[in-house]
Amino acid sequence: MSGKIRVGILGATGTVGQRFVQMLEHHPQFQVTALAASDRSEGKTYAQACQWRLAGDLPEFAKSLRVQAPKPPLPCDLIFSSLPSAGAQAVEEEFARAGYPVISNSSACRMLDDVPLLIPEVNHEHLRLLEVQRTSRSFAPGGFIVTNPNCSTILLALALAPLHARFGVSAVVVTTLQALSGAGYPGVASLDATDNVIPFIAGEEEKIESETLKILGRSKGDAIEAARFSISAQCHRVNVSDGHLAAVRVKLARSAGLDEVRDALASFTSLPQELRLHTAPERPLLVREEPDRPQPRLDRDAGHGMSVTIGRLMPDRVFDFRFVALSHNTIRGAAGAAILNAELLAATGHFASLRARTA
Amino acid sequence: MSGKIRVGILGATGTVGQRFVQMLEHHPQFQVTALAASDRSEGKTYAQACQWRLAGDLPEFAKSLRVQAPKPPLPCDLIFSSLPSAGAQAVEEEFARAGYPVISNSSACRMLDDVPLLIPEVNHEHLRLLEVQRTSRSFAPGGFIVTNPNCSTILLALALAPLHARFGVSAVVVTTLQALSGAGYPGVASLDATDNVIPFIAGEEEKIESETLKILGRSKGDAIEAARFSISAQCHRVNVSDGHLAAVRVKLARSAGLDEVRDALASFTSLPQELRLHTAPERPLLVREEPDRPQPRLDRDAGHGMSVTIGRLMPDRVFDFRFVALSHNTIRGAAGAAILNAELLAATGHFASLRARTA
Amino acid sequence: MSGKIRVGILGATGTVGQRFVQMLEHHPQFQVTALAASDRSEGKTYAQACQWRLAGDLPEFAKSLRVQAPKPPLPCDLIFSSLPSAGAQAVEEEFARAGYPVISNSSACRMLDDVPLLIPEVNHEHLRLLEVQRTSRSFAPGGFIVTNPNCSTILLALALAPLHARFGVSAVVVTTLQALSGAGYPGVASLDATDNVIPFIAGEEEKIESETLKILGRSKGDAIEAARFSISAQCHRVNVSDGHLAAVRVKLARSAGLDEVRDALASFTSLPQELRLHTAPERPLLVREEPDRPQPRLDRDAGHGMSVTIGRLMPDRVFDFRFVALSHNTIRGAAGAAILNAELLAATGHFASLRARTA
Amino acid sequence: MSGKIRVGILGATGTVGQRFVQMLEHHPQFQVTALAASDRSEGKTYAQACQWRLAGDLPEFAKSLRVQAPKPPLPCDLIFSSLPSAGAQAVEEEFARAGYPVISNSSACRMLDDVPLLIPEVNHEHLRLLEVQRTSRSFAPGGFIVTNPNCSTILLALALAPLHARFGVSAVVVTTLQALSGAGYPGVASLDATDNVIPFIAGEEEKIESETLKILGRSKGDAIEAARFSISAQCHRVNVSDGHLAAVRVKLARSAGLDEVRDALASFTSLPQELRLHTAPERPLLVREEPDRPQPRLDRDAGHGMSVTIGRLMPDRVFDFRFVALSHNTIRGAAGAAILNAELLAATGHFASLRARTA
Repeated sequence: MSGKIRVGILGATGTVGQRFVQMLEHHPQFQVTALAASDRSEGKTYAQACQWRLAGDLPEFAKSLRVQAPKPPLPCDLIFSSLPSAGAQAVEEEFARAGYPVISNSSACRMLDDVPLLIPEVNHEHLRLLEVQRTSRSFAPGGFIVTNPNCSTILLALALAPLHARFGVSAVVVTTLQALSGAGYPGVASLDATDNVIPFIAGEEEKIESETLKILGRSKGDAIEAARFSISAQCHRVNVSDGHLAAVRVKLARSAGLDEVRDALASFTSLPQELRLHTAPERPLLVREEPDRPQPRLDRDAGHGMSVTIGRLMPDRVFDFRFVALSHNTIRGAAGAAILNAELLAATGHFASLRARTA
Repeated sequence: MSGKIRVGILGATGTVGQRFVQMLEHHPQFQVTALAASDRSEGKTYAQACQWRLAGDLPEFAKSLRVQAPKPPLPCDLIFSSLPSAGAQAVEEEFARAGYPVISNSSACRMLDDVPLLIPEVNHEHLRLLEVQRTSRSFAPGGFIVTNPNCSTILLALALAPLHARFGVSAVVVTTLQALSGAGYPGVASLDATDNVIPFIAGEEEKIESETLKILGRSKGDAIEAARFSISAQCHRVNVSDGHLAAVRVKLARSAGLDEVRDALASFTSLPQELRLHTAPERPLLVREEPDRPQPRLDRDAGHGMSVTIGRLMPDRVFDFRFVALSHNTIRGAAGAAILNAELLAATGHFASLRARTA
Repeated sequence: MSGKIRVGILGATGTVGQRFVQMLEHHPQFQVTALAASDRSEGKTYAQACQWRLAGDLPEFAKSLRVQAPKPPLPCDLIFSSLPSAGAQAVEEEFARAGYPVISNSSACRMLDDVPLLIPEVNHEHLRLLEVQRTSRSFAPGGFIVTNPNCSTILLALALAPLHARFGVSAVVVTTLQALSGAGYPGVASLDATDNVIPFIAGEEEKIESETLKILGRSKGDAIEAARFSISAQCHRVNVSDGHLAAVRVKLARSAGLDEVRDALASFTSLPQELRLHTAPERPLLVREEPDRPQPRLDRDAGHGMSVTIGRLMPDRVFDFRFVALSHNTIRGAAGAAILNAELLAATGHFASLRARTA
Repeated sequence: MSGKIRVGILGATGTVGQRFVQMLEHHPQFQVTALAASDRSEGKTYAQACQWRLAGDLPEFAKSLRVQAPKPPLPCDLIFSSLPSAGAQAVEEEFARAGYPVISNSSACRMLDDVPLLIPEVNHEHLRLLEVQRTSRSFAPGGFIVTNPNCSTILLALALAPLHARFGVSAVVVTTLQALSGAGYPGVASLDATDNVIPFIAGEEEKIESETLKILGRSKGDAIEAARFSISAQCHRVNVSDGHLAAVRVKLARSAGLDEVRDALASFTSLPQELRLHTAPERPLLVREEPDRPQPRLDRDAGHGMSVTIGRLMPDRVFDFRFVALSHNTIRGAAGAAILNAELLAATGHFASLRARTA
């Protein structure tokens, strides 16, 4: 067991749950010791309960783990949650009350005032909210909830972060072309996907418009003051397996030249890179110069799926600049986001009380 | 021959050329009597020269027509041109000089000051430019050039036309998801299309940004005064066979309510509908209320491929309104556009001199 | 009501049910007056209950029809059934007992000894089984059950029929590449379809192997004597919306030349063509000579979706001949098959007692 | 340079050429020192000449290599050739005459009597033909030609090899569903691939039928005596990026039970596994028991793209057994095949004279 932190995965049989299992197979700090999912799967081994949809085989370690009910106690030190949003808040709070750190990819708690909506490169100072949770919530010591944003929001917020920091952002128009895996499994029917585009993803436009402003907001005392620029999102599902693409126009608060903007994006690094977190990509943003990049099939795995690739950066006739950004929606946009959050929490001492409890 | 106008098609073996042949097979006013294409095809029958890519068989009448060189004279009364833009201007002007009306889908002459860039429902008054051509060009009597816009521009300009007329438009942001057939044949390599999006179509963003302003411009004396709003286009190729989709945000010159905007779109009809032109759809714009429409596979053939379907119309957080619009790119966006142009020209007496010449 | 036969559709909201509604909208003999589906849909209008997945709009006539429970009585004279196979037999027999002719696309009753498994061009003499039903079943007068085969079997049996009749068939190896719509809606998950092939369709290989032999069997007294050749089927789901393709090798009972075989296929017509049944294609089998046909996108709609297109006919190194055959799986392979069956039954006097009952 | 063998790649800018560059980036024995391609690319750097179509970036080492003409001398010790078949024979023989070992993926020389058509696991004893080349050809010392089979043939021959060895094979019927990358780049037009199947790949059926018999033939004195069973191939292009799938029926020379057959396949290993060749998979054939495997997206990368995955093994009604087999067409079916061939040649002393020459 070698001193690794024992983790449990809620929603383990779903698309994102499978990514957690895959990404944690050889993780240096975390070891999966508990898998939980809905009633239908309970009591089965993971191999029986899970229709593995990722390339390659289900990792050997997970095959014989029994799927348990998603309620405490579970034989683990912290929780990764990828539960469907309905019902997720109650379950996640129950785990936090029982003293588990909950690192959630679910949308349920993202917009709660005292819950950090965390992208380690962007707003690690929002972790101050954990102190608010400690004092105002009835969570047992060590228990808390940290969330990561919606898959498209992560992509957008990462691309905007250095622009917002350096020039200020006053308006954003984003149009997404999102991959099928974002809808989970079975998700989108093939008859709807083939030779088609669906200009609708339930709740997605609202999530992007609200989450982005919280993420780019400032930590002020006990609260996050949301960023104040206006933002418009139109979302489309396209016939791509993995890799969300976003066409972005941005109006800056102060004028900037194309070279400054390119440099702000390309040179962006942050705390996870300084701390050399295991899942952190060397460069969060890769700026490509070819006229026809990024493309999902060619660029989604950049930085092991954790880098956002930006291309077609140029001045815009209506706003100041426009560009296209792409990232892997189930890695940087979901499982990898949560794992990076957990790595940051570990590196910043937020799991200090874990060992005491589990000893 | 029954009094039909005899037409010749330049670029007859290409994707759009094939649509011309298909759409004109049973046309009440036009009869295809000449097919022309590049050197490689010359002298072959159309059946030999053309790799027919549309569903169904190559129309019987066209099979044994000999493919000729694209230069006058051709045994026809008017010319439909879908030549590649390189070289198209010289060829089209040569035909006009020889007295042929040239109805062109090629991009070569679209932005010339004295050439109408025509969408019959939108700017039929731009046909006044034909008088400019008559006086300033050395075209033989009856010869002139009329063009239709780029496939994505048509879609956008049709959707904007009633808003521009009723409320004024002050800014437009459009993001397109365009079909593979827009690139012709062989066009996009399947390895680039499968499980992928390409965020680049050469020249497309510029065409949309410039052509839209010309189309929505006002005819003033001998010239068209381009519309003055700002417009930003980002274009993507997606894995769809036919049907371009555009996500649009629009800022209006004067404030308007959602119902007014919906009504302006849904009630839009124009001269082609009054004249009951053969290829004119009953309703140029169909406004759907379902949250997930329009979709290429379901809506591209609306109005026999000549209607634009609009959905997801709603207020926008950055601009005033947003919506998604879709149309069939090789019908309303190309061959059908040119044929409708020709029908308007016929109905408005612009082919008056044809019979004299061909008698 | 104009003397049309009133028809009810069981399973009306499914993929095949929608095709029935679409194909019957303007049918000269049948008029849809009843729509039935499972509990969830009951009481809703068809427009509310049905997520229409076919191109174009839901036909106006059907929008306000109330969806009823699939049990007699229904306000119609005959029943088209596209119920899921589980439970279909009981429901269909209940309707037959109540005196309704049941024309079923469901698999439930296909292999029953006294139920015709009918392809009008192939085995119309199997309708003699209806007399067996009349004497041995407790169906009310006018009530009976006729089925059509599985979508892939129809394709294969149609292609084999003239070979079997003229030369005898002694062995068949068939490998199918089947379209997504064959699995219904939502059916195959898009993540399984995109950039993929699934080499498995539950029960399909067995259905092809058994149904084909029954269809090509001889009517002998009260029974059908199944054909006796051996047959092997391997089935694959491919990323195609509509159109099943089958790669076929066939060993004939007596030797034949390539020209004889081609002629047997290309010249094949049968009773539906003689009777000029409304849905019967002019030619059941179209033999194409191009090396790369048939293709689903180009050939599935041949003969309004009712013709089978055959290509790549050539001698085979292991068996005698090989070819590729294609047809539209939800038209010739399902709804169209049942409608053609009903047209044959009408033309051959099997609905004689209808008017009496409904008067 | 660390004692690695210096290799040159002919056809370096093509789909297979790019795979060579990718697979050889970190190879322990080979180092790419020369890239050659057709006239258009000559003199450019590889980064300029090559439109890199594989996921990830073009390997750094290759970017600045100059593309040279495909003729000797080249600054390397051995040649990997993925030239188009037209003209390949002359070029490859020219290199062999100049003393280069030529490891070719091109089809040009495969069926020549004195050229090994090599799959290391299957017919390594065919390397005896190199002695025939040495004595009968005017190749300089060290020069020879070894080929690997067509991408589909490799898959089939690997699956048949243990059955042929243990039970004898008397007839084979194979139907392929082949990936787009097999046609190179740009290869198949996206309009032909989307929502479609193409039942034709030029020359493919003939190659499978002839190459398989040569590969499974016996080395007899100076010649290979082709295997004598009959074989029938039907080939289809499907909308899959990578991964060829083959539906196989096989008749054995002596009767065998299902368990024996499964065991023969699953336990198959050969010389490359004994020699622990770098690119050799641990298990050449993986037999899966799930009813719906193998699938291209899930199984093509098994064994780093070098294992063939077999599923749906069962008795057949016409032949003895049937199964579905899948492998990665540009790895095991092309670049990986050639590299494994080279590794075998290295391990068996066939490059002994290299160092002398290049010293």
